[in-house]
Amino acid sequence: MSSTTIPVRTASASYDVVIAPNLLASIGDRLATLLPTNPRAFIVTSPEIYGLHGHTLTHSFVTQPTILEVPPGEEHKRLSTVERLLEELAQHGADRDSILIAFGGGVLGDMTGFLAATYMRGIRYIQVPTTALAQIDSSIGGKTGVNLAAGKNLAGAFYHPLAVFADPAVLTTLPATELRAGLQEAIKAGIIRDRALFDYLDTNSAAILACDPESLTHVIAESVRMKATVVANDEREHGERMLLNLGHTLGHAIEAATHYTQLLHGEAVAWGMLAASAIAKRRGLITIAEHDRIERVILAYGPLKRFQADPAQLVTLTAKDKKNRSGARSFILPRGIGDAVVVKDVTVEELTFTAERMMAMVARQDVAHA
Amino acid sequence: MSSTTIPVRTASASYDVVIAPNLLASIGDRLATLLPTNPRAFIVTSPEIYGLHGHTLTHSFVTQPTILEVPPGEEHKRLSTVERLLEELAQHGADRDSILIAFGGGVLGDMTGFLAATYMRGIRYIQVPTTALAQIDSSIGGKTGVNLAAGKNLAGAFYHPLAVFADPAVLTTLPATELRAGLQEAIKAGIIRDRALFDYLDTNSAAILACDPESLTHVIAESVRMKATVVANDEREHGERMLLNLGHTLGHAIEAATHYTQLLHGEAVAWGMLAASAIAKRRGLITIAEHDRIERVILAYGPLKRFQADPAQLVTLTAKDKKNRSGARSFILPRGIGDAVVVKDVTVEELTFTAERMMAMVARQDVAHA
Repeated sequence: MSSTTIPVRTASASYDVVIAPNLLASIGDRLATLLPTNPRAFIVTSPEIYGLHGHTLTHSFVTQPTILEVPPGEEHKRLSTVERLLEELAQHGADRDSILIAFGGGVLGDMTGFLAATYMRGIRYIQVPTTALAQIDSSIGGKTGVNLAAGKNLAGAFYHPLAVFADPAVLTTLPATELRAGLQEAIKAGIIRDRALFDYLDTNSAAILACDPESLTHVIAESVRMKATVVANDEREHGERMLLNLGHTLGHAIEAATHYTQLLHGEAVAWGMLAASAIAKRRGLITIAEHDRIERVILAYGPLKRFQADPAQLVTLTAKDKKNRSGARSFILPRGIGDAVVVKDVTVEELTFTAERMMAMVARQDVAHA
Repeated sequence: MSSTTIPVRTASASYDVVIAPNLLASIGDRLATLLPTNPRAFIVTSPEIYGLHGHTLTHSFVTQPTILEVPPGEEHKRLSTVERLLEELAQHGADRDSILIAFGGGVLGDMTGFLAATYMRGIRYIQVPTTALAQIDSSIGGKTGVNLAAGKNLAGAFYHPLAVFADPAVLTTLPATELRAGLQEAIKAGIIRDRALFDYLDTNSAAILACDPESLTHVIAESVRMKATVVANDEREHGERMLLNLGHTLGHAIEAATHYTQLLHGEAVAWGMLAASAIAKRRGLITIAEHDRIERVILAYGPLKRFQADPAQLVTLTAKDKKNRSGARSFILPRGIGDAVVVKDVTVEELTFTAERMMAMVARQDVAHA
């Protein structure tokens, strides 16, 4: 069975991402190799994930890790949850040598990374992502954090794990909608910088969506490889790393407008990528053929769930994007498949156009069943 | 008038600490030189400090900074306060280019540094410390954070400021007890690694305690220089930096036992240094003469306030120290003035001895009026 190791090398960290089916059963052994001193381990997880796969994970540990549970859901991705976990670590006697294991999806991984970043001013952690979104995208690159009332991911830290262990076999137990939504981030990776990955996603959608282990391993590995390259060049998102936010400016606005309840993150990003591609087409930045192919492949990994939002509100919400600096609004547009760029001159008129077009598309019955 | 600039150069940061009387009035100009793009500035401060010195500080800014207020006191050094400030930054439209100015004492500086470390995963900040403790010690070295219910400074980050501007003239407006407590950290710096500074503190206590600007500038500058050297060698406290915790293991235990209400931090550290010196004397690690001189100088910067605590409880509380790794207890002991070491073998029996001796000393009337 295929196993791929992708090195991540940044200014501040150096670690490997291992992607292999049935990897879960060997994580204890792998950790013992990485950390021969056998420090105390704490698994941060959700009851659902732990119920499904906890035994497979912990079976490989000689000393049983302590389990800290977090209820699933974006609404728990808050400083109050992190504070509760910090107190629990202290009560359990975690020290600077202890290691955290983030065992769950993107929300859990972001929060556990931030927990590791802040407990005693930083302890080690590994990511064991269990959703397509987390394996393809969010467990890589060291972005950790929580939401504020004022906006998503506004509190956090750049803090890299010691390793990432992604087991694609775990994805077979997830709801199909989560798999599809997560794969939108692989499409994003393809559009940004990897035309071959995009082609693969286009050609092999049936096998990928059927959770064929070889195909999933390939898609995850190539998505991670693209992201690792970008993060290596620009760890702190001063330039190139902004490209990874393709689809995210409007995606975040959609999530905020729908109070994070109607769409999965990957679905919101998919809508955001459609909107960015539409702006690029209208500008003549991308050919009509490439635009249409992007749209077709995104919808092939649908159906994209409908949502309700006011186009004007979506435009207003983009003004809060973290990429904005000193008032200038940044936006990522595709020039072609495998070639995205950061632009600073997207106008309110263009945003209004694309938001209205998007909401019209949302309203079309056939999109929801593409 | 004397002005001293001490460079801090670590693996992750490079910045200057400027110490000069009446520096406050030029900070806006200095910031404009450091950041010619004129980003939005936010002053985080306490009402008291801002009332005393806010006008002097803001007068030097062309564009008036936004003021965020935090009530003074260790009890506000919590994640809930940081969360409130994060929300306020977002509501005021702070972006990744914005800069925070920590204008206050040690608690305020620790919290503002953590606020800067976590807002949008890290924005820039400067330290403008206004207490002796903060100018001599806590504003230097990038340790930021807040307290948990489980212990002091258990949540935080290593995150350096862009610059530190310390104005010793500000110290004349502070209560004398705060000045004296803060100067204990200068004594600490002398004991750890700078015999000349210790000698200066011994010889010039009258001028220093009278807030003579030249003397204070010298003491602050030499304390900062010592700390900068240690932090340059060991930013993340894997070894040498632990030395800076001389007096802090028992000091933190005293603070915890007295619920942070009876002593100032520097006073607790002073008691902790006396206790560490007593262990060193009992071991024969330090000569009796050096031990007695340390005790005399610490008490010369007293009076050390009394407090109530059970020796056994103090010993128990030292087990929670952040320096402890994988169960091993670390302790800092002086081998002589200007020469401290990290030891791992301090026993519960030694801790009990020194805690009991300390509490007997506390009970002696003359100590409180030394």
